[in-house]
Amino acid sequence: MAQLLSSQTAVCYWQRVRTATPLVFCMTNDVVTNWTANVLLAAGASPAMLSDPSESEALAAVASALSINVGTLHVAQAEAMKKAVASAQRAGKPWVLDPVAVGLLPLRTELCRDLLRESPTVIRGNPSEILVLAGEASQGRGADSTQSSDEALAAAKHLALGAKTIVAVTGASDYITDGERTLRIDNGHPLLQRVTGTGCALSALVAAYVSTALNRSEALDAAASACAVFSIAGEEAAQKALDRNEGSGSFAVYLLDALTTLDETTLEKRMERKMK
Amino acid sequence: MAQLLSSQTAVCYWQRVRTATPLVFCMTNDVVTNWTANVLLAAGASPAMLSDPSESEALAAVASALSINVGTLHVAQAEAMKKAVASAQRAGKPWVLDPVAVGLLPLRTELCRDLLRESPTVIRGNPSEILVLAGEASQGRGADSTQSSDEALAAAKHLALGAKTIVAVTGASDYITDGERTLRIDNGHPLLQRVTGTGCALSALVAAYVSTALNRSEALDAAASACAVFSIAGEEAAQKALDRNEGSGSFAVYLLDALTTLDETTLEKRMERKMK
Amino acid sequence: MAQLLSSQTAVCYWQRVRTATPLVFCMTNDVVTNWTANVLLAAGASPAMLSDPSESEALAAVASALSINVGTLHVAQAEAMKKAVASAQRAGKPWVLDPVAVGLLPLRTELCRDLLRESPTVIRGNPSEILVLAGEASQGRGADSTQSSDEALAAAKHLALGAKTIVAVTGASDYITDGERTLRIDNGHPLLQRVTGTGCALSALVAAYVSTALNRSEALDAAASACAVFSIAGEEAAQKALDRNEGSGSFAVYLLDALTTLDETTLEKRMERKMK
Repeated sequence: MAQLLSSQTAVCYWQRVRTATPLVFCMTNDVVTNWTANVLLAAGASPAMLSDPSESEALAAVASALSINVGTLHVAQAEAMKKAVASAQRAGKPWVLDPVAVGLLPLRTELCRDLLRESPTVIRGNPSEILVLAGEASQGRGADSTQSSDEALAAAKHLALGAKTIVAVTGASDYITDGERTLRIDNGHPLLQRVTGTGCALSALVAAYVSTALNRSEALDAAASACAVFSIAGEEAAQKALDRNEGSGSFAVYLLDALTTLDETTLEKRMERKMK
Repeated sequence: MAQLLSSQTAVCYWQRVRTATPLVFCMTNDVVTNWTANVLLAAGASPAMLSDPSESEALAAVASALSINVGTLHVAQAEAMKKAVASAQRAGKPWVLDPVAVGLLPLRTELCRDLLRESPTVIRGNPSEILVLAGEASQGRGADSTQSSDEALAAAKHLALGAKTIVAVTGASDYITDGERTLRIDNGHPLLQRVTGTGCALSALVAAYVSTALNRSEALDAAASACAVFSIAGEEAAQKALDRNEGSGSFAVYLLDALTTLDETTLEKRMERKMK
Repeated sequence: MAQLLSSQTAVCYWQRVRTATPLVFCMTNDVVTNWTANVLLAAGASPAMLSDPSESEALAAVASALSINVGTLHVAQAEAMKKAVASAQRAGKPWVLDPVAVGLLPLRTELCRDLLRESPTVIRGNPSEILVLAGEASQGRGADSTQSSDEALAAAKHLALGAKTIVAVTGASDYITDGERTLRIDNGHPLLQRVTGTGCALSALVAAYVSTALNRSEALDAAASACAVFSIAGEEAAQKALDRNEGSGSFAVYLLDALTTLDETTLEKRMERKMK
C-alpha cells in the first residue's frame, strides 16, 4: 500500500529548497543545536534559533517554518514553544513536531499531547515515539527506538487521521503518511544511528521542505523528499567513510559534505537502485 | 579612506595571542558554544564559559577578556551578562559585543541598547546589525545580513564615535573603525557563510586579540588582525575543501586546522596578494 | 606504588561496553553536549540528556549510569542534578562527578561539596580540581590545570579514602585510585588539550565503563580502562593528524573515528609499548 517516493518528486522539492533558502526557526534540544544549524545550511536552508518566550512569538511569525523538538525540554522552553506554535498557526506557517522520548518522561509527554491538538503540519519520529503518540505503546529507550518502522505504520496512519497531520516514521524504511496516502523510502544507512541528532536534524529539514509546499498533498511529498535527500546523503557519506576505514567522526563530516554537494543525478541513481 | 591592514600588524598580534594564550570568557549563544571554544583553542587562546549570574561576575574579573553574544538570549542570561560587563569594566578588562539579530527581536534589542551605553571595547557585527545599532536601519533576516559592509561603513564610523567604541563590520570586505581611523581587510571566502557561528566565533577571537592591546589604537589594530587571521584561515580551508570537491562539513574542520597550523608566511602571502 | 593498568583488563571492559551498550544519562555543560554524545556513541554506549528536574529523577532511575559535569552549572541544573543523584543512589546505579573549575567559582564549588557527601562512584578531574576537592589547593585557571597529575596523586588518594570514592586524576599520566590500590596509564597525547570537552567526554565514558562493573574493585579497573581507551584513541588520532600536517579540527574527527574502529590489537600494542 505504501508507494515508493519517485525520484522526480524528490528532485523537485530539493530544487525548491535550494531556490527558496527557507528560514527555519528551530526550537530544539541543547545537544543538537549546532549540528541542526549546519545540516540546514548544508542543505540550502537558513537556520534561526533563540530561547526567550517573548522572542519566540515574533520569530515564528516571520520564519518560513517552525521546528519543535522536545529532547531537552524544560518548563520555560515549553512555554516558548507554545507561543511559537500559536504564532506560526496565526501566520499560516507550517510546523513540525519531533516528540523525542515521548512517553518515557513526564514534561515532554504532557507538552506533546497538548501540541498534538494544534495539528502539526508534520510529526517526525522514530517507531517507538509514533506508537506512544498514537496511544498504542510502551515507551522507547531514551532517543532510541525498540520497534521497527514497519511495526509502527498502522499507528502512524491512525495518528495522522486522528490529529489531522502528516506522520513521518523513520527507521530502516521511512514511511510518510497522511492516513490515506503513504510514501515509502528505502534509502539510508545504519551509520546514521551512530551520530547524535540525525533524527532531530531531519525534522528541521522536513520543516524546510514543507515550507515550499502549496497544499497538504504537496506537504506529504515535500516531507518525504526531505527524508529521501537526508537518507541519500547518509548513503553517500557512509560509502566514503567505510571505503577509507573511518568511523562516526568522518561520517558526520561527510554527511554535511554530501548535503552540500548533492546533485540530481545522485538523487535519481540512489532512489532508482531501490526500485529494482 | 579605509587603509588596508598591513601583514606586519596582523603577524604581530597573531604572535602576541600565541604567546599570551589569553583566557576569553565567552557568554554566547547555545548554537555555537562548542564551535567557539574550539576556534579559540585552535587559534591559541583559552576559552571559558558558564551560565550562572553569580559566577559570571567572578569570572569576568579574572579573565583576559569578555565576549558577549546575544544570539539565544534569555532573561537570566541578560542579567548574567550585565553583571559580567560591569565586573570586566571594574577590572579594566576589554569586552566585545556581538549584537546578533538586533532590531528583529525585542529582548536582545533592549539589552544591546543598554550595553551600548557601557562603551564596549569592540562591537563586531554584520552590516544589518551595525546599521540597526547606529539607528539607521531596518532589521536583518535572522543572523544573515541583507546589506553589504560597504553600505554600513558610514554607520559604523558614526556608531564608533557616538558610543566611544571600535566597530568591526564584517562581510565581503571587513571594516574596522574607531570613527577616525579605518582599516580594511579583503580576505575571506563565501564558504564561511555556510557554517553556523563563524561570525560568533570571530567575535570571541576579536576579544582574545584585543586583550593583548596596550591602548585604544592598538585595540583597533588587534581587532583588525583577528578579522584578518580568521579570514585567511577561511581562505586556506576553502581552497582545500574545494580542491577535493568537499562541502561545508570538511570546510569547518579545515578552518580549525588552518587556525592551528597558520604561520607568518601564509598570513603575509595571502594579505599581500590582496594589495596588488 | 601505582601499577600500570594491564592491557588485558582494558580489553575486557572495552568488550563489556561494546556488548552492553549502556545508557548513560549525562547532565553536562552546554559546551560539550553534542561532543559528549558523539564520543559515547563512537565508543559503543548510548547517550541520554535532558534538563528538567522533574524528568532527571525518572531518567536516572532507568539509565545504566549517571554522569554529572558542573561546567556551566546554573541553579535549576543544580537542583536537577541533586534529584538525579538521589534517584541513581536509590536505584543502585553508579554515578560520576566531573568537578569542572571547582574552587574558582561559587555555585559549582558549593554543589561539588554537597555531592561529595553522596559518595560518587568515581570523581574524574584534572590535578587542580582534585587538589581543590581534597582541600589542599588553590584554584585552577578555568577548565585548565596548573598542576601535574603526579603532584595531585597524594591528594587523590586522600580524597578517595575520605569520600569513599574512586578518583581518576588525568593529565600527562592518568592515576585512578580508591585510596588503597592505584592504577596508572601513560598513554595520551597533548593534542587532547586542544579540543574542548575531551575531559568532560572522558567522564561520561568512565560512567559507561563503571556501569559494567560488578563491585568496587571492578569499578576501579573499569574507570582506568575508560581512561586507557580514550587516551589510546587520542594517540591514534594524533598520529594521523600530525602525519597529514592537520590541526585540531581533523584531530577531533579522527578521535571519534578511532573510538569507532579501535580493536584489541591496537589497545594491546599501544599499552604494552608504554610498559617497556
